[in-house]
Amino acid sequence: MSDDAATPSHFDQLIGLEVTELTKDGVTAQFTITPQLQQPYGILHGGVLCSVVESVGSMSGAVWYDGPVVGTSNHTNFIRATREGTLTARSTPIHRGRSQQLWDVDITDEQGRLVAKGQLRLANLDRSDQIGRS
Amino acid sequence: MSDDAATPSHFDQLIGLEVTELTKDGVTAQFTITPQLQQPYGILHGGVLCSVVESVGSMSGAVWYDGPVVGTSNHTNFIRATREGTLTARSTPIHRGRSQQLWDVDITDEQGRLVAKGQLRLANLDRSDQIGRS
Amino acid sequence: MSDDAATPSHFDQLIGLEVTELTKDGVTAQFTITPQLQQPYGILHGGVLCSVVESVGSMSGAVWYDGPVVGTSNHTNFIRATREGTLTARSTPIHRGRSQQLWDVDITDEQGRLVAKGQLRLANLDRSDQIGRS
Amino acid sequence: MSDDAATPSHFDQLIGLEVTELTKDGVTAQFTITPQLQQPYGILHGGVLCSVVESVGSMSGAVWYDGPVVGTSNHTNFIRATREGTLTARSTPIHRGRSQQLWDVDITDEQGRLVAKGQLRLANLDRSDQIGRS
Repeated sequence: MSDDAATPSHFDQLIGLEVTELTKDGVTAQFTITPQLQQPYGILHGGVLCSVVESVGSMSGAVWYDGPVVGTSNHTNFIRATREGTLTARSTPIHRGRSQQLWDVDITDEQGRLVAKGQLRLANLDRSDQIGRS
Repeated sequence: MSDDAATPSHFDQLIGLEVTELTKDGVTAQFTITPQLQQPYGILHGGVLCSVVESVGSMSGAVWYDGPVVGTSNHTNFIRATREGTLTARSTPIHRGRSQQLWDVDITDEQGRLVAKGQLRLANLDRSDQIGRS
Repeated sequence: MSDDAATPSHFDQLIGLEVTELTKDGVTAQFTITPQLQQPYGILHGGVLCSVVESVGSMSGAVWYDGPVVGTSNHTNFIRATREGTLTARSTPIHRGRSQQLWDVDITDEQGRLVAKGQLRLANLDRSDQIGRS
Repeated sequence: MSDDAATPSHFDQLIGLEVTELTKDGVTAQFTITPQLQQPYGILHGGVLCSVVESVGSMSGAVWYDGPVVGTSNHTNFIRATREGTLTARSTPIHRGRSQQLWDVDITDEQGRLVAKGQLRLANLDRSDQIGRS
C-alpha cells in the first residue's frame, strides 16, 4: 500500500511535484513554477496550490495509515501571490484517528515565506478494499 | 479586464477545462477525465476538482466585478469518487460585495450526480492596479 | 435516537433556538437576537451563527440517519452583519452517506437576506454505541 | 479601539470565557464546561468551540490591527469529544495583512490534548468607521 502512496500520480507529474522526504509524521515535496501553472495574470494558479495540498496530505495519510485513504475535504488559504521560483510543501498531522485523519500542509517560497496553508481531511478506507487498484 | 477573465489560463488548458457559458451570474465549464488527471488509485485527483472550483469561481467573480480578483480561500468537499467521463462545473453567487465575493461551484457527472462542491472566496482588487499584466 | 435529535440541547436553550420543522430532508429553526448574543460592537456574535449551523445541521443528520452523529467540521461564512430581529436557519442535504454526511445551513433575516451560510460535516456513529446517553 | 477588543462580549460572558493573556501576537483564554454548554448527548456543543475560536481570533486581530475587525469565515475542526474540565484556547497568526487577517486557534484540554482547531478570517475595517459603537 505504501508503495502506492509513495508513487507520484500522473497529476503530480503534470505539476512537477517531487517528494523529498516521506515519513509517517509528514511529507516534504517541491515543485517549480512554470508558465503552464499560471493563471491569466501570470500568478501561480491557486488550484495548483490546492493540488499540492491534496497530494502531500494524501501521501502523508496513506503512509501513516499504511492503507488506502481518500480525501473528503480540502480547505486551502492563499496567503501570498507568487510568480516564480521553487516552492516547498510540508505536512504536519493535526489528527490521525481510526476512521479519519486531518493534515495541515504549509507551502513556502525560497525565502521561507508562507504562500498557502491547507487542511486536508481524509477517510481511512478498509485495507481489504481493492478500490482503485488500476 | 473581462477579456482576461474569459481567457482560459495555461493551467486550465493543462486540465482541458472549456467554458461553455459566461455571465455575471455564473459560469459553466466542462472537462473530461484523462489518465493524467488521476491519482495513484485511478480516481480523478482531488486537486483537479479544487482547480476547477478555483478557475470557474475566479472567472465568475472577475466577470461580475469587471475587474481583477484574487482567490483568498478555496474549500472543496469531495462527494463521489469518479474515474471517467465528462464533468460539468457550474457557479452560483453566494455573496458579491464591494471588497469580497463568495461563490459556490458544483461539479456534477454525466448523470447529474454531485461529484464535488466548492466555495471560493475572492478579494476584489483595485481596478487601476496593473498587477499580473504579464 | 430521533427523540434525542429532536430535543433541544441546553446550549440551544441558551441561544433561544426553536425548531419549527424537522424532517429527514431538512430542519428549520428560529432565534431572536438579544443583547446577550452580541459581540462588543453590538453586532450578533459570529459564534452564535456557527452554533446555529452546528445545532440545525446535527439535528438534520441525526433525524435522517436515525442514530447518533457527531460533528467533525463546521465552516461558516458570515455574509451580513446583523443587530436585531428574528433569524431563520434552514438546512439542505449536500451528501448523506453510509459513514459521513454534509449539510448546508442558510441563515436569513426577516427580509429573506442571507446572513450566514454554513457547511457541517458529520460522522455517523454506530447505532449500538451508548455514547452520550447521559 | 483596543479597549473594545479586550472587552469580553455579552456572549463571551454567557460561555464563561476568560482572557488570560492578550498580546499583538496572540491571545490565551479559558472556559469551563458546564451543563448549559452541552449538546443532547452530554458532550460539549461544537458551537461553543466555534464561538471560542471566533472570540479569541477576533480579539487577536483587533489587538494587532488596533482597529475594528469583523469575522468573514470561521472553519473549526472538532478533534476530540469532551464532557468536562477547563479548556484553553490559544491563537497564532497565520497572516496579518493590510485588509485581511487569518488566525489559527487551538483549543486544548487539561492534559494538553487538542480538542478543536479553528481558522478565523477577518476583514480589517476602516479605523474611522463608527460601526457598532453601540
